[in-house]
Amino acid sequence: MTGDRPGEDDLVRLIRELVRRRAPGLLTGVGDDCAVLETRDGVSLLATTDLLIEDVHFRRRWAEPADIGAKALAVNVSDIAAMGGTPRWALVGLGCPEGTSRDEIEAFYEGALAVSDAHGVVVVGGDTSASRAGWVVSVTLLGDALRPILRSTARPGDRIAVTGTLGRAAAGLAVLERRTAPRGVEAALLDEVTTAHLRPRPRVAEGRWLAGSGGVTAMMDLSDGLATDLGRLIVESGAGARVDLARLPVADATRVVADTLDVDAVDWATGGGEDYELLVVCEGSALERLRGGLEDATGTTLTAIGEIVAGSHIRWLDGRGRAVAVAPGFEHFRG
Amino acid sequence: MTGDRPGEDDLVRLIRELVRRRAPGLLTGVGDDCAVLETRDGVSLLATTDLLIEDVHFRRRWAEPADIGAKALAVNVSDIAAMGGTPRWALVGLGCPEGTSRDEIEAFYEGALAVSDAHGVVVVGGDTSASRAGWVVSVTLLGDALRPILRSTARPGDRIAVTGTLGRAAAGLAVLERRTAPRGVEAALLDEVTTAHLRPRPRVAEGRWLAGSGGVTAMMDLSDGLATDLGRLIVESGAGARVDLARLPVADATRVVADTLDVDAVDWATGGGEDYELLVVCEGSALERLRGGLEDATGTTLTAIGEIVAGSHIRWLDGRGRAVAVAPGFEHFRG
Repeated sequence: MTGDRPGEDDLVRLIRELVRRRAPGLLTGVGDDCAVLETRDGVSLLATTDLLIEDVHFRRRWAEPADIGAKALAVNVSDIAAMGGTPRWALVGLGCPEGTSRDEIEAFYEGALAVSDAHGVVVVGGDTSASRAGWVVSVTLLGDALRPILRSTARPGDRIAVTGTLGRAAAGLAVLERRTAPRGVEAALLDEVTTAHLRPRPRVAEGRWLAGSGGVTAMMDLSDGLATDLGRLIVESGAGARVDLARLPVADATRVVADTLDVDAVDWATGGGEDYELLVVCEGSALERLRGGLEDATGTTLTAIGEIVAGSHIRWLDGRGRAVAVAPGFEHFRG
Repeated sequence: MTGDRPGEDDLVRLIRELVRRRAPGLLTGVGDDCAVLETRDGVSLLATTDLLIEDVHFRRRWAEPADIGAKALAVNVSDIAAMGGTPRWALVGLGCPEGTSRDEIEAFYEGALAVSDAHGVVVVGGDTSASRAGWVVSVTLLGDALRPILRSTARPGDRIAVTGTLGRAAAGLAVLERRTAPRGVEAALLDEVTTAHLRPRPRVAEGRWLAGSGGVTAMMDLSDGLATDLGRLIVESGAGARVDLARLPVADATRVVADTLDVDAVDWATGGGEDYELLVVCEGSALERLRGGLEDATGTTLTAIGEIVAGSHIRWLDGRGRAVAVAPGFEHFRG
């Protein structure tokens, strides 16, 4: 984002400051993956909202209505997953241009409902509007959690890990944004990375298992890329971090696409957004147990990538242990 | 709305049909003012969401950021009021163009927070995004109610009443849309109608009092105009209605502006949207008690305007009891 418009983190700080004056007692609000609204009978009510706007978050050239609906749900489901919660109810607002057909609108909702069905979420309400300016989607998701895991509770000495792999959605976006498919890459690999971008799979079962297994001290989802999101986690936790770049889990498909497009796959793994994997911080003594248990319970890998340290910034180390610079993350694509 | 895009009510039917297949047990969902999510310890959790889009719902030429924020909150608060509920938590999404200043964004949130403060609502979360196409606001509001009043439960023989006056917001919109103020109308009257449009006052205390007083059988808020909204209420209730046009409460300011602009004030009262008054259906025997009690409790008038009857449409009667045609309501303004 350019011009006078403040960056997203500036805005979060501004909004949080305005809100904090009014609601000093609110447990967790603007700034975490979800707000924790209240706890009754030991169950916390969670809420999160996301806006998806055409030509900021997606392009109609490569995103079908069903993709847009599915992703709008998935990114909110991921926010509930990031707290270790269970998603329950969704409200879906859709603005679309005049001339949008009933079939397109139905496809949008079918896409959204496919994801809500998969996670036991009920779409309980919504709003529709004309829009003079492309598709605009807002989803609010409510859920609950027995013990919501925050991003502000990481402590020096804790280990940092991630589920799945990093950079695949960025690879997919790079492919989608091209007018022609990159040559010499198998269709199955292209499909793998573009599907990762268009249809992310929120880690609900993983988040719930991790939150319930003890030893996880902080968690969030990776929506804006590791560099940006880990940066937020350490600010909230008042700590620093060390990350070993050589340990970042990068899928083979991501490496192949990166090589073909002459990009460093590690840049996608650190700076690319929208993987919707979980960034997990845990006690060092719990890491091996969590890694084995998560794979047994869900089939999903957990890879240690670094450590929370004292301080206030991220040190990125290459394979030889040398500090290297990493570009700040992702703020959506620019037209 | 023109072209292939289905109308709002068509969309609500479509979405409801898609959702109903999945959630047959949900108490109340898409189609009422709020969804009723669950009831715990006798308290129902309510949720509602609204999208406000530049040049569909407001114009930047006459709506300041603080107005936009205030109205985005108010229209959602009104949905909770329409169920007789208490608004509690809001999530606010804002998309705005590059070049929007921090001051404008802060003013937007200050406007929203002024309304949330006035109703004891805590803003607990949100999302911000760039937008290539003007301001886009989504608000989701959660609340609770001891006994939510639906729009689907009106019965033949019940009386129909409205709080406050009708048509003032439409008069205000007509003034705002002009390039020059209408001549010969006092500034105070112009201010009254434009404020009614820009800063509607949701009837929370009124809705809560009415819901708690017994005898109210159905309720909704008037967002899209009496003709459209009463039409929805009778469809949901499986009934018809008779409305006496001569009894519609129209404010003096509305009449003066209507006369000056050569408009029939009754057209604004039936077809003009955004008054955010309550449309109240009650047992005939309860009407006088509710009218007196509401005025004592809140200072707000309640005016009987007609009756629920058997059938499936609205009969509009003029001062001599003759049936007259009334244009269907409001679907926002067209550019």
